[in-house]
Amino acid sequence: MKALGRQLVVEFWDCQGDLNSAELIEKTLKEAVQKARAFLLDTKVHRFQPQGISGVAVIAESHISIHTWPEYKYAAVDVFTCGNTDPDAAVEHILQVLKPKKVKTLRIERGVLQDQNLHLEYKDYDT
Amino acid sequence: MKALGRQLVVEFWDCQGDLNSAELIEKTLKEAVQKARAFLLDTKVHRFQPQGISGVAVIAESHISIHTWPEYKYAAVDVFTCGNTDPDAAVEHILQVLKPKKVKTLRIERGVLQDQNLHLEYKDYDT
Repeated sequence: MKALGRQLVVEFWDCQGDLNSAELIEKTLKEAVQKARAFLLDTKVHRFQPQGISGVAVIAESHISIHTWPEYKYAAVDVFTCGNTDPDAAVEHILQVLKPKKVKTLRIERGVLQDQNLHLEYKDYDT
Repeated sequence: MKALGRQLVVEFWDCQGDLNSAELIEKTLKEAVQKARAFLLDTKVHRFQPQGISGVAVIAESHISIHTWPEYKYAAVDVFTCGNTDPDAAVEHILQVLKPKKVKTLRIERGVLQDQNLHLEYKDYDT
């Protein structure tokens, strides 16, 4: 099945890592881009008051984002790539940094030429 | 059910609009941000050779992205927002511009505190 893009929609719950550091989120985004073997175009990280970070790495192959809610120890992670990249390696790296105890992953195949449907695969696990 | 974020993952097939204009995609992203009543932080649009556009609007409330494959008349649209915003209005605006004949929408509730699950709703229609 040929898909033009692959997208990982990931819920990180009960994170033990620092969800309120803009520096950490930016560094982690850049490292995740490298792990995915993607080409970084730009990163943009916004810090909310009193808490929370919204970070996006724009890559030639689409985007990687981390949005955090420290008050709930929750982070929403998205990795959307195309071409010869490794989106799972990006998620794995972000997981090592944010250290969630509970992870829910939705894998979506985008742009499936064969039937033009969205193909979904769901995984729920504790770390 | 309280969700911290709402995400629309949308497949646009058989687009009649111009999928190869970086200017159009950037303008459309900015307009979509306004329609969603979100706060724009930055836009980044990359044009591939010989074709294809990768565009992301980073908003305080998360992100809106449009990635296009003109050779397949296909665009992958993502709208992720939180707070008092209207993600559907953003998708509707992008739809008006790119004019797909076939649309598949996956609506995802992110950060559902109640059960920490991903809640999905799928819609498939012709315009």
